Amino acid sequence: MAAASKDTAMPLPTASTMVAPEWRVTIMEEGSSVKMEHEFGPARRAYLAVRAKVSTIVKMLWRMGADDPRKVVHGFKVGFALAVVSLFYYLRPLYDGVGGAAMWAVMTVVVIFEYTVGGSLYKGLNRAAATLTGGGLAVGVHYIASLTDEAWELVILNSSVFILASVVTFSRFVPAIKRRFDYGATIFILTFSLVAVSGYRVDQLVNLAQQRLSTIAIGISICLMVCMLICPVWAGSDLHYLIIRNMDKLAESLEGCVEEYFSGKEAQKARGYKCVINSKSSEDSLANLAAWEPAHGPFGFRHPWSQYQQVGAAMRSCAYCIEALHSSSHSEIQAPELMKRHLSEACIKLSSKSSGALKELSACMACMQSSECLSDMVKEMKEAVEEVKSALKSLPTQYNNELGLEKDDDNMVMKRQSLMESMPLVTVVSLLMEISVKVEGVAEAVEKLGGLAEFKPSGSKF
Amino acid sequence: MAAASKDTAMPLPTASTMVAPEWRVTIMEEGSSVKMEHEFGPARRAYLAVRAKVSTIVKMLWRMGADDPRKVVHGFKVGFALAVVSLFYYLRPLYDGVGGAAMWAVMTVVVIFEYTVGGSLYKGLNRAAATLTGGGLAVGVHYIASLTDEAWELVILNSSVFILASVVTFSRFVPAIKRRFDYGATIFILTFSLVAVSGYRVDQLVNLAQQRLSTIAIGISICLMVCMLICPVWAGSDLHYLIIRNMDKLAESLEGCVEEYFSGKEAQKARGYKCVINSKSSEDSLANLAAWEPAHGPFGFRHPWSQYQQVGAAMRSCAYCIEALHSSSHSEIQAPELMKRHLSEACIKLSSKSSGALKELSACMACMQSSECLSDMVKEMKEAVEEVKSALKSLPTQYNNELGLEKDDDNMVMKRQSLMESMPLVTVVSLLMEISVKVEGVAEAVEKLGGLAEFKPSGSKF
Repeated sequence: MAAASKDTAMPLPTASTMVAPEWRVTIMEEGSSVKMEHEFGPARRAYLAVRAKVSTIVKMLWRMGADDPRKVVHGFKVGFALAVVSLFYYLRPLYDGVGGAAMWAVMTVVVIFEYTVGGSLYKGLNRAAATLTGGGLAVGVHYIASLTDEAWELVILNSSVFILASVVTFSRFVPAIKRRFDYGATIFILTFSLVAVSGYRVDQLVNLAQQRLSTIAIGISICLMVCMLICPVWAGSDLHYLIIRNMDKLAESLEGCVEEYFSGKEAQKARGYKCVINSKSSEDSLANLAAWEPAHGPFGFRHPWSQYQQVGAAMRSCAYCIEALHSSSHSEIQAPELMKRHLSEACIKLSSKSSGALKELSACMACMQSSECLSDMVKEMKEAVEEVKSALKSLPTQYNNELGLEKDDDNMVMKRQSLMESMPLVTVVSLLMEISVKVEGVAEAVEKLGGLAEFKPSGSKF
Repeated sequence: MAAASKDTAMPLPTASTMVAPEWRVTIMEEGSSVKMEHEFGPARRAYLAVRAKVSTIVKMLWRMGADDPRKVVHGFKVGFALAVVSLFYYLRPLYDGVGGAAMWAVMTVVVIFEYTVGGSLYKGLNRAAATLTGGGLAVGVHYIASLTDEAWELVILNSSVFILASVVTFSRFVPAIKRRFDYGATIFILTFSLVAVSGYRVDQLVNLAQQRLSTIAIGISICLMVCMLICPVWAGSDLHYLIIRNMDKLAESLEGCVEEYFSGKEAQKARGYKCVINSKSSEDSLANLAAWEPAHGPFGFRHPWSQYQQVGAAMRSCAYCIEALHSSSHSEIQAPELMKRHLSEACIKLSSKSSGALKELSACMACMQSSECLSDMVKEMKEAVEEVKSALKSLPTQYNNELGLEKDDDNMVMKRQSLMESMPLVTVVSLLMEISVKVEGVAEAVEKLGGLAEFKPSGSKF
């Protein structure tokens, strides 16, 4: 239905794709396609619409896959892991070994297989730990309950489920638990309830628990092996490169904004700061998942992933200023050309120094070396700030001189005008100076990261 | 271990809490507590540390519960739903009815019970639909496979699992599917795999599927009834009030920042904009969940929840400017007091008009009425902008006059000085004007919301 109703919005079929309409149209003229469409029966129209829709979706999926082939590989990895674990059902010898509980292996693979290694490890370890503790506790409660008579047993088991589920559910609101053990808390409640409750029926509770644990362990191992050995996607590296990419975008959009303002030409790269503003939640989730990952590539086991969040925060604080700069530079009041020209050189220099420092920082992070020239670059950036200040100080004199005004009665009017008109320009300049302070903040955060992650001294071979 | 090693960081026990140290200390002097601590045995020290840790955690939980009692209620609701569903295991007649598959009811309740009604509905409906379609498809594939010989059966079943899991996993990367059917995709793969695979063993597949579906339906119904009937938490209302609260915070922090700048006193409320900046992900997830909710309170079934995201975006764009204003107002260069005093009245008026408009907007949203005086307020805000402009125009004259300067040779120096010094002030003023533009953007977004949600005309009784 939705597809059919959208068919007017679809690109109309061209003559070459139209085969076998219900009434034949002998002459096809350009522009007649709208009329022709009505000559198809409703079924045919629906078919064409669906076909167009499907082809749009397929194209979109194809583009998505081509943009990031890792996503396609992830799909195949999940399929492969499931196919492997299914063998535990099909092949008799294995089947007799783990029994009907093999279902748990399939379930485990489906629910814990995540895109990143960190995600799979987080869920896998949470599931293992929660199954063990939940199951153990349930067996304990069940043992105590079995010492009493049947009515009390019911009360004890049911109220223990009630109390534990309530407390653990509430504890999921604690931020630290939510971040690390949210999935574990769910599985803990699930396992406890299932074991406590099923124990009431099944005598060989411990035996059952053992079987179930072994199948869950099989599921987790298969899942983690496939996830980590076949084209692994590490949350840590993803975070690392996300921050580097964002830092480059920030540098480019700073340059772009200033260029745009002084040249008046639209620069596409000027919008890059928006990515930085919007990537907080990705950074947070990647940093959380990266903490579960073992050492990989250049990153050690206790790589300071949370410091990346600090770098991200410093970058966002810079991006907010660029956003304000971007709005101010599109203000309706335009500063007089002469003034703009006077300041443009110093401003462009400052912005290129600031963005140069950002690029240097991203290059440092990319090769995980501490920078040799960073402190010089920061110093140059500060000098550029001073130059902008002195350009600003010399501004009114020059401005008035060029207009050839002498100190006469008109001067006062001139001055007034200039302060009002120069407002957006002054704002841009002041925000540029503010941005250079924020860039220093980013530099500090990256330096702290370098200290924590033990970046190599510059010049050393990687 | 962690608790014990942290014991030095804990507040040291005071004399009154120290009972029965292992060696008695007869004289307790102030400052001696550090020494005394060493006189406890390690077990005692660990006990004290653990006790302090536990009491900290309990206090934190208590505060969390007192701040938002709905979280405590949610815990009890989950416990209650689980206790109810457990009765399906305990009570024989019911047990015989739904069989061992009752486990699925418990599992369903645990995994789909979410904090908000929208979350539970999203998961419940996704689970129901995915179980039906996944199960149905698996039965179909199993039927086709059963027509062939055993070797082919294995190949067909296993490759269908591989292909479906790969395709569906990949489709989860499509943003629209991720937003609405992420959980459903997981359950689809899970059900398909389990049924396709278990069908190879169990003859009465349809019968089993029926049982399983009925238990899942029982689980979903119990879960949704408890979730919706006992103190329901609606994602929609939460989103509505989050936006209103944030709008008030934005208004207050705008006023606060300007006050802080002109009076020089720290205003606590000036930091409120940070909440607005950081609430994007909450808004997005609440808006996604709210779309699943039925009509509740003043909100109809197709309430335009996505427009709330637009309002949120407009507010964030305003908040970025306030952040820049906040940084600029803490700049090291301070504008001369006279200039500041000259502009303060107009600026404070503009900020109070802007924040007044925001407050009016939040009040409109709170009672879901369109505002009578909003357009007047926006007009007044624009007038205030003009007043600021004219104050700015009259500034140098007055400034110089008050200093008693005549147009002489010093004048030029004076002027230069003033442009440099006035820079942060000009920036603050310019950002204030920019903010008033952003407030208009918020007003437009709220008006559009009012149109879509059919806000009542102002003055009508609610």
